[in-house]
Amino acid sequence: MSATIHRLDKSTAPSLDPMVRLVAGDMNLVNAVILARMESQIPLIPELAGHLIAGGGKRMRPMLTLASARLLGYTGTRHHRLAASVEFIHTATLLHDDVVDGSDLRRGKRTANLIWGNPASVLVGDFLFSRSFELMVEDGSLKVLKILSNASAVIAEGEVHQLTAARRVETTEERYLDIIGAKTAALFAAACRISAVVAERPEAEELALDAYGRNLGIAFQLVDDAIDYVSDAGTMGKDAGDDFREGKATLPVILAYARGNPEDRAFWKAAMEGHRARDEDFTHAVSLIRSTRAIDDTLARARHYGQRAIDALGGFANGQAKDAMVEAVEFAIARAY
Amino acid sequence: MSATIHRLDKSTAPSLDPMVRLVAGDMNLVNAVILARMESQIPLIPELAGHLIAGGGKRMRPMLTLASARLLGYTGTRHHRLAASVEFIHTATLLHDDVVDGSDLRRGKRTANLIWGNPASVLVGDFLFSRSFELMVEDGSLKVLKILSNASAVIAEGEVHQLTAARRVETTEERYLDIIGAKTAALFAAACRISAVVAERPEAEELALDAYGRNLGIAFQLVDDAIDYVSDAGTMGKDAGDDFREGKATLPVILAYARGNPEDRAFWKAAMEGHRARDEDFTHAVSLIRSTRAIDDTLARARHYGQRAIDALGGFANGQAKDAMVEAVEFAIARAY
Repeated sequence: MSATIHRLDKSTAPSLDPMVRLVAGDMNLVNAVILARMESQIPLIPELAGHLIAGGGKRMRPMLTLASARLLGYTGTRHHRLAASVEFIHTATLLHDDVVDGSDLRRGKRTANLIWGNPASVLVGDFLFSRSFELMVEDGSLKVLKILSNASAVIAEGEVHQLTAARRVETTEERYLDIIGAKTAALFAAACRISAVVAERPEAEELALDAYGRNLGIAFQLVDDAIDYVSDAGTMGKDAGDDFREGKATLPVILAYARGNPEDRAFWKAAMEGHRARDEDFTHAVSLIRSTRAIDDTLARARHYGQRAIDALGGFANGQAKDAMVEAVEFAIARAY
Repeated sequence: MSATIHRLDKSTAPSLDPMVRLVAGDMNLVNAVILARMESQIPLIPELAGHLIAGGGKRMRPMLTLASARLLGYTGTRHHRLAASVEFIHTATLLHDDVVDGSDLRRGKRTANLIWGNPASVLVGDFLFSRSFELMVEDGSLKVLKILSNASAVIAEGEVHQLTAARRVETTEERYLDIIGAKTAALFAAACRISAVVAERPEAEELALDAYGRNLGIAFQLVDDAIDYVSDAGTMGKDAGDDFREGKATLPVILAYARGNPEDRAFWKAAMEGHRARDEDFTHAVSLIRSTRAIDDTLARARHYGQRAIDALGGFANGQAKDAMVEAVEFAIARAY
């Protein structure tokens, strides 16, 4: 236990590197599980899954499982299989997301649905999702199974929620937070929490790690949604303006709409409905978002959740693992600057 | 145990009614679980799922779980939740299948993807699939979880296999049997087997019920694939010729191709590749299938697996449950006549 207060105001640029280094050895073992378990006699399965899994993702979610286990001093090996399971759930979700959004670019590469078609992406996603459950069942903890099956149901429900909110500029901030809490933060939370289960720690530590992951996940998604209005394709591996063109009422839009005059609101409504998709429309959207300080305040919200994530770690012993987990939060937020 | 020999040669028309009556009380409880667990704060979820789940399906798979439990004299209630879980897996698969195939008719009704679009069908399928795992986890048997998570992975793998075999007339009978063994028979087998687990019966009975379900599933699919070349929309709830137009190399096609002259083979190759999609092409296909006796022999194969299903029940006590399960096999095969 420690009373050290970590704050989000370091002067040097925060980095994910300490966490990457912390779990590098474990991650090699997780990658071995991932490679072994995406194998199939049907060549299309490893080919398509490998395109995305080997495609330069940060492995953020399994990294969180591994870092949390380090934080708790866990010395077993169960978390390797479970971290692979978490990455499979995430990959399955991405495959289906890209079908749902009709995306053609992810992490700077052509999407699987563009290369192999929507049917293959849907079915390989289903395969990875089933495989993730097989991995959990092999681990054999009903508690872990409960946490991850619940997270999966919440994610799927959040994705449907997002679909029904699509192109609706009147989405409220509360509804938006519900959606990102489900589609992003639930898996971050579960990824951290399961380490406390395998390490057989008290429920308070489970809940603390859940809170760390959940708040980090919300901060992460808020920053992603902000970056869509400030970045170019080089930064994000997706085109700036993707969310705008897809009519996603993310927080920058919700704030700019709420603060706009009637003319601005008419613009946002038309844009979300898909009638303002030219490059100059996006430029106008960015200028409205700047003038209403919508990005600044989206990032202020992200810092709020980031600080909560960091504070959730307060009860754990100081050390390399905790430092890395704190800096991961700072990194998540600093990406936007 | 019993030495009575059941054979597939009754003179009266076999019916599914005895099995329906056998499990009617249990099925009401299963339906209550299904309705309760497809609920969500997102109205689209019960609306879309309910369209398919309430849409006149026979509930064949949960019925097999319930009938198997009756065969074993199980008097508990765990199988209600698990039968609902099985139906959710099946429904999720159907939703994704219809997206993959671009189908617009299922059980005589417009498909969910036609009404609500592909994105909604993909995501609600994911939700039901996650919910099915939540139901299994609530039951708490790792053995049941292993059987059903493995079946799910096998189904998904079989669906990808079918996709990569699509439009290939040179598909072998062995490959075709692998595909239907995975995409159809695996869930039939698991649906039956889990009843032996909850009834805490010896592994031999688990395996016998697995064999009953698996062989019934293969027979069922063979007959389905035969019906596509003999029925009209009224019989099947789908249009005759759907498989033909989608270029599915089912057993009737595989046999007709193998037995055809060079001209016939050229026709089948072009047809599977999508270049013979007119009504008169389908009429020609049906005449080739008749002249090569491909339907007769597809149904002979179905009877072979049906007899194996019936023989797998040989070790169980005679009675109402066994009679109903035998007649269900006879019904599955008689549908084609």
